[in-house]
Amino acid sequence: MADQVAGVKSAEELAKTQKGVSVSEFFEKNRHLLGYDNKIKALLIIVKEGVDNALDACEEARILPDIYVKMEEVGTEKYKIVIRDNGPGIVKQNIPKVFGSLLYGSKFHRLRQNRGAQGLGISCAVMYSQLTTGEPVEILSSVGDGKTHRYKMKIDVKNNIAQVLEEETLTGKEWHGVQITFVCEGVYREHKQSVLEYIKQTAIANPFSNIVFEGPTGRFDFKRTVNELPKEPKEIPPHIEGVEYGVFERMLRATSARSVASFLTTEFSRLGKTTADEICKVAGIDGKISPRRVEDKDIGKLVQATKQVKLIAPPTDVLSPLGDKLIEEGLKKELNPEFIATVSRSPAVYRGFPFQVEVGIAYGQSITEFKIIRLANRVPLLYQQGDCAITKSSMEIDWKRYKFQSDKLPTEPMVLFVHICSVWVPFTSESKEAIASYPEIMKEIKLAIQEAARKVSLYLSGIRKAEYQAERMKTFEKYAEETAKALEDLTGENAKKIKQLIDKVVSERSGEFQDMGEEDAEEKTKKTKDDEDGGEDE
Amino acid sequence: MADQVAGVKSAEELAKTQKGVSVSEFFEKNRHLLGYDNKIKALLIIVKEGVDNALDACEEARILPDIYVKMEEVGTEKYKIVIRDNGPGIVKQNIPKVFGSLLYGSKFHRLRQNRGAQGLGISCAVMYSQLTTGEPVEILSSVGDGKTHRYKMKIDVKNNIAQVLEEETLTGKEWHGVQITFVCEGVYREHKQSVLEYIKQTAIANPFSNIVFEGPTGRFDFKRTVNELPKEPKEIPPHIEGVEYGVFERMLRATSARSVASFLTTEFSRLGKTTADEICKVAGIDGKISPRRVEDKDIGKLVQATKQVKLIAPPTDVLSPLGDKLIEEGLKKELNPEFIATVSRSPAVYRGFPFQVEVGIAYGQSITEFKIIRLANRVPLLYQQGDCAITKSSMEIDWKRYKFQSDKLPTEPMVLFVHICSVWVPFTSESKEAIASYPEIMKEIKLAIQEAARKVSLYLSGIRKAEYQAERMKTFEKYAEETAKALEDLTGENAKKIKQLIDKVVSERSGEFQDMGEEDAEEKTKKTKDDEDGGEDE
Repeated sequence: MADQVAGVKSAEELAKTQKGVSVSEFFEKNRHLLGYDNKIKALLIIVKEGVDNALDACEEARILPDIYVKMEEVGTEKYKIVIRDNGPGIVKQNIPKVFGSLLYGSKFHRLRQNRGAQGLGISCAVMYSQLTTGEPVEILSSVGDGKTHRYKMKIDVKNNIAQVLEEETLTGKEWHGVQITFVCEGVYREHKQSVLEYIKQTAIANPFSNIVFEGPTGRFDFKRTVNELPKEPKEIPPHIEGVEYGVFERMLRATSARSVASFLTTEFSRLGKTTADEICKVAGIDGKISPRRVEDKDIGKLVQATKQVKLIAPPTDVLSPLGDKLIEEGLKKELNPEFIATVSRSPAVYRGFPFQVEVGIAYGQSITEFKIIRLANRVPLLYQQGDCAITKSSMEIDWKRYKFQSDKLPTEPMVLFVHICSVWVPFTSESKEAIASYPEIMKEIKLAIQEAARKVSLYLSGIRKAEYQAERMKTFEKYAEETAKALEDLTGENAKKIKQLIDKVVSERSGEFQDMGEEDAEEKTKKTKDDEDGGEDE
Repeated sequence: MADQVAGVKSAEELAKTQKGVSVSEFFEKNRHLLGYDNKIKALLIIVKEGVDNALDACEEARILPDIYVKMEEVGTEKYKIVIRDNGPGIVKQNIPKVFGSLLYGSKFHRLRQNRGAQGLGISCAVMYSQLTTGEPVEILSSVGDGKTHRYKMKIDVKNNIAQVLEEETLTGKEWHGVQITFVCEGVYREHKQSVLEYIKQTAIANPFSNIVFEGPTGRFDFKRTVNELPKEPKEIPPHIEGVEYGVFERMLRATSARSVASFLTTEFSRLGKTTADEICKVAGIDGKISPRRVEDKDIGKLVQATKQVKLIAPPTDVLSPLGDKLIEEGLKKELNPEFIATVSRSPAVYRGFPFQVEVGIAYGQSITEFKIIRLANRVPLLYQQGDCAITKSSMEIDWKRYKFQSDKLPTEPMVLFVHICSVWVPFTSESKEAIASYPEIMKEIKLAIQEAARKVSLYLSGIRKAEYQAERMKTFEKYAEETAKALEDLTGENAKKIKQLIDKVVSERSGEFQDMGEEDAEEKTKKTKDDEDGGEDE
């Protein structure tokens, strides 16, 4: 061929090199996609994957979590990490799959508020360990039947399956839960984005958990302060607004519903008979025919029709927010602040997925600087702060309006705690470090922060007014004796009695400034001032 | 159990929901990871995946690429995209795999400078199309044997395999190459990050290609201006510095080498017998034993030993940079600038991977503002500019030192073209939009930009000097006649002759300022000035 030059490779030659890649090989080579891009972060991610799984399992089985994390240096930049929970355990035959196959798990195919979602996290932690140290993981699991299954395994990366090295069943110990031991490469640091900080924030967001962390610098106990789990999140069918053509088609082809109309009402969230009939009518399709009889070309009409009829929003009571009480408990127990304001927004919807934003602001006392704690489905997010909808929303708020010292973020000593829960949190990347900036989500976050900021502002202005007032009272008190004496001379009344009267007035007035909102306080202050001013004029 | 509350789910119940997820399902649900996060970008990515594959195939078969891209609106936010190349074609039996399975391709398992790498791009484009419109793709392929294989297919997402709907072999047309037709959801815009901009930048970086784009707003021809392909990149074995424990272990277990020493010398890049023997010695292992006889516990010793011996860097002649000529040709043909400076750094190494940075700066004329064109292995990067090592490096340069107007980036009318080529480009995410900020890479980019900036600065200062000089000459010329006359009176010499002499001197002097570097120009200017000053004083 004229346009070919020397060294040509034919299609046949090229074909020889074309082959499949296992998902394990893919993520082994691209481990930075899951956040394993440096040795410090690696330790954090492994602990996070283990603790997230433990909390999810306990909550799903409605068990108050007791979690134990141990981390010790066993060589140069080499750590042994043990994570143990008191969850329901994993049945024997599933252990190799859960820990030895990427993309295996219980959470991918359902819409439910969970920490994990993809079935990638824990098996990638196994893969990272063996990649960096060559060491297998050890897993102990018991479902509470007196048997403990013990596995030593690696991942066969070429085939994305477990490579079991040791397997035995031990008896004699009554417990339930899972314990996993990793040996991996890492560097331990205690700073802003450390394992310790992650565990601390997890303890704040999950005050119904006991977490013990035995780390390289000592033992840290994060005690349970609430003996009640948040309500259980419900699993919901998808809302048709968030379902795309290809998925709709697959659902239609796989349904066991007998008619198109019943397919619509049974497989989707909040889609009633009237709406289903309307969709069929708009699409020009008989709702009574079997889904199997819908031709390919008519599927598009159905999808289009769903965009033209009025839909009812998905149910929002399926979420499991923390609620004001748990947020307050969490912030109180770990941060010891002077004041806490909490706000729980009503659930909202983006792309057919319900979500809910909660905010807590803890102010003063043990808190010395401004900090944001970001959480998604109760999991702290420590990296990529700048890319996150939570940070962006915080920076778009006019903090000065709430009387905070602020450039883009306040400089007051306070912790801004923002939690978003959803059946499908839109993360910006697979390492799940930042929330994507959907306008609907940004809006809710901002409204929640503003409301909380207002509460703190009211508190602070109350404090400031009271302080100001107390200062004035003090001055007044200082001269009370003198004044009493002068009045005795003037009126003939006993100075002691006059002094008592003055003291009484002062103490009553100072009491007026307690438990007041801003408007009240301001009004009172004004009145008082006016009164006093008036009084002075006389 | 005491710590359980109502609603407990047992491990057995939970086990029922645990199952595997196909890689197609994973990326369908997480398509934003591959960049499909909005309808405008989706069109760009599909064109990009098609064109990247076409260019890779042509180059690998050493064919000068002729690429045709057509995009037309076929419904509301619905586009038909046709991409055709004159590459070697794909053999019949591989067509369903290449387009119908994610993570299938020829490029994952080798270290070689390619545009694509994972076997994800084109199959994800197929998946996005069917997800958003339900439409299959059509593929035509011929290896130049007079037969054209035509497929209509979708991806069976649950199983990550092709679902072939139509399949036929046509005869009677002699050609070779691939044509693929997508019908997908999208929005077409012509702006900074558009399909047109992507194709234009591709044309700049690949001036040995003919690219025709028939878009919604008309036809654009990007003509080939160089009839030679860049040298073919070589495939290299991995360098031991970039190989981690787990991969080393797998290679050791899979090798056909007869001894550990020969395993080291044959499977790794630039590792000779002396180094291999030294590694074995440091590890305390007999280099003559079979790799199969190395015990698990000794593998760690070998890996450790590789970190203790002196290694030779990987070969760097395996890359296929554009070179000064191609960069200049590309910039010239599409941007029509006044001046071009190019810099090709020598190859460097990060984590055992060779890489090379090339920079071109095109200045003035048709260029009206400052812009960065980022490229990795000849592919333009249009998104996530702020996260990219190229942008970050550009902003760390003290542009003022090179006499540019600049805050963080210059405001001069110029295009900064930065190309990094490597056998393994470290992208920050799977959507391959930004290069990770490895210090070694940042350093090379900065050095290359600085060198190019210096060249532009020299040119500009030459221009400025020449302009200044021309201005002076003009003034001098203006008074030449008058001066001549005055001199005639003084010397008695003919005014016309004197004028000619003056003109001659002026034209000679003005010539001196052409083709001069900065130092020269400065020196000359000084001298001339001194001379003139001196002359004027007389």
